[in-house]
Amino acid sequence: MRIVVDGMGGDNAPAAIVQGCVEAAALIPHQIFIVGEETQIKKELKKYKYNKDQIQVIHASEVITNEDAPVRAVRTKIESSMVKGITMLKEQEADLFISAGNTGAIMAGGLFILGRIQGIDRPAIAATYPLLRSKRGVSLLVDSGANVECKPNNLLEYGAMGSIYMQKVLNVDNPTVGLVNVGSEESKGTTIVKAAYELLSRSNLNFIGNIEARDIPKGVCDVIVCDGFVGNVILKLSEGLAWNILKLLKTKFTSGMVSKMGALLLSGKFKELKELFDYSEYGGAPILGVKGAMIKMHGSSSANAVKNTILKGVPYAENKVVQVIQDSVLELEEVMFRE
Amino acid sequence: MRIVVDGMGGDNAPAAIVQGCVEAAALIPHQIFIVGEETQIKKELKKYKYNKDQIQVIHASEVITNEDAPVRAVRTKIESSMVKGITMLKEQEADLFISAGNTGAIMAGGLFILGRIQGIDRPAIAATYPLLRSKRGVSLLVDSGANVECKPNNLLEYGAMGSIYMQKVLNVDNPTVGLVNVGSEESKGTTIVKAAYELLSRSNLNFIGNIEARDIPKGVCDVIVCDGFVGNVILKLSEGLAWNILKLLKTKFTSGMVSKMGALLLSGKFKELKELFDYSEYGGAPILGVKGAMIKMHGSSSANAVKNTILKGVPYAENKVVQVIQDSVLELEEVMFRE
Repeated sequence: MRIVVDGMGGDNAPAAIVQGCVEAAALIPHQIFIVGEETQIKKELKKYKYNKDQIQVIHASEVITNEDAPVRAVRTKIESSMVKGITMLKEQEADLFISAGNTGAIMAGGLFILGRIQGIDRPAIAATYPLLRSKRGVSLLVDSGANVECKPNNLLEYGAMGSIYMQKVLNVDNPTVGLVNVGSEESKGTTIVKAAYELLSRSNLNFIGNIEARDIPKGVCDVIVCDGFVGNVILKLSEGLAWNILKLLKTKFTSGMVSKMGALLLSGKFKELKELFDYSEYGGAPILGVKGAMIKMHGSSSANAVKNTILKGVPYAENKVVQVIQDSVLELEEVMFRE
Repeated sequence: MRIVVDGMGGDNAPAAIVQGCVEAAALIPHQIFIVGEETQIKKELKKYKYNKDQIQVIHASEVITNEDAPVRAVRTKIESSMVKGITMLKEQEADLFISAGNTGAIMAGGLFILGRIQGIDRPAIAATYPLLRSKRGVSLLVDSGANVECKPNNLLEYGAMGSIYMQKVLNVDNPTVGLVNVGSEESKGTTIVKAAYELLSRSNLNFIGNIEARDIPKGVCDVIVCDGFVGNVILKLSEGLAWNILKLLKTKFTSGMVSKMGALLLSGKFKELKELFDYSEYGGAPILGVKGAMIKMHGSSSANAVKNTILKGVPYAENKVVQVIQDSVLELEEVMFRE
């Protein structure tokens, strides 16, 4: 298979992107295209030894930045690395697209260049949520920020697409689906969430009902369904809180003599903890619902994050998740229009 | 002043409630009424030495449980400890009402027995959010769960009422107000949040704009404004994540010989951390916007939580927060109806 990577997207582009591609290429047999300003990309590539048949550079003279208005950027910067990369996916010159660039532009590119899967109303961003004390490793949070306003059928779609991704990419059998709500009772929540509960209950998904936010970190379900506003809050709050707790631990544990000794003895454990919260280990977030396999990486992705996103992205394209979602749409429509 | 406490509300009632009242009474000169089943309350009181003039029991033959439908319960169980307690507030036989009972029923009691402050559309629950690395101690999260669906003017009201509470009860000068959103730019968010941004900008509050959830734990602002759905997610996720991180630390730090030694050396620090996350230290959450000073405690409140809620509740009643909110309503209306 062929992977196309946006060489110019993200805070550490192109250096970290190129390094990540080189590191990933050493571990997989697949073709990698890096799209971007040729001189810059080649300058970075020169730093490494790599198989020149496996990594190729595709020149793109423009760059979409985080300051660009997404829709406008995708429409006008047609020579940008992002638009060219997504177009390669569209033209079946590549099987997987990866970018750490402007999230809105990635979404807009997915919608306007690839188009939605027929029958899916709103594509969503599915972020992996690290579980601290579960062997299962991660839950999938859909939507984690694409659509701040959702209809009940959108939430049903998120549950269905998330389930397919969990099965096909993360090898979870019969994944459980939970709906984020303010209480576990069916009667709780907004009008929209209540209607979504109804739809999810009627579906053939492994729906476990409403879940409360306090149970998310322990891994209460495989697929966490919510609108993009709430999903964004969940993701960012978790990041912020974990980071602040680690900082606090460090301050607390290194004040006083006895504590310093204790902290020294525990330094290995601290490192393990930090890794657990390190997004770069988990790969990126797929955009589910568009006609192509796209993965959005964290804007400040390191080379390690790029490498892991490529490695973890392979089964997303290989197992034809997009096709499976397409095939399951009819079932969703039956749920929505059944009396 | 006179404090009325619902002796029958919460998982640990009446034992923990009575104990908390006795402990608080020893520290303040105020009158405490405990409303509830007389025999049970008196049996608990017998365990302690206390000033019999200071703590009095008011008999109530009924109890509103967590299983009761809130509105119905408040309408029909008129002999319940909750209804009798709130009625004492209404009749000016008490200045502050505290309960660990059914949250919906407390809200319904506030609305139907006391009524809304004229000009306030929706009363809200204002929870204190512990800040881990800030000397300021807490932010105030409004609304933390009363109204899952909000209009823009409700969010403006939350900002205004939260500011007054922060000034009058927590002694914060010119408190900063932030609006929870998916990004810091003015153009972000749902239609409702965008309109609320507009209203807050035009107000005389110390509005700092949109805040992202990742900045909440570090104390980005004094008053965190959001709808009750998002507020509930923020509060519960923080609780769950902090608890899971502490659990994980314990597991990690006590595996292996060297680690056990380290953990032993750090046990005091662990205790400090646990206290930081312990809701019982922070007192309860005021119901802002009703015509009376009401505080809702955590359902599983311990005696310590009851004691702290009483102690921290005193300035809420003494500084006439309800009256100040009433006086500021005209200003809010001007913001809302200005072109």
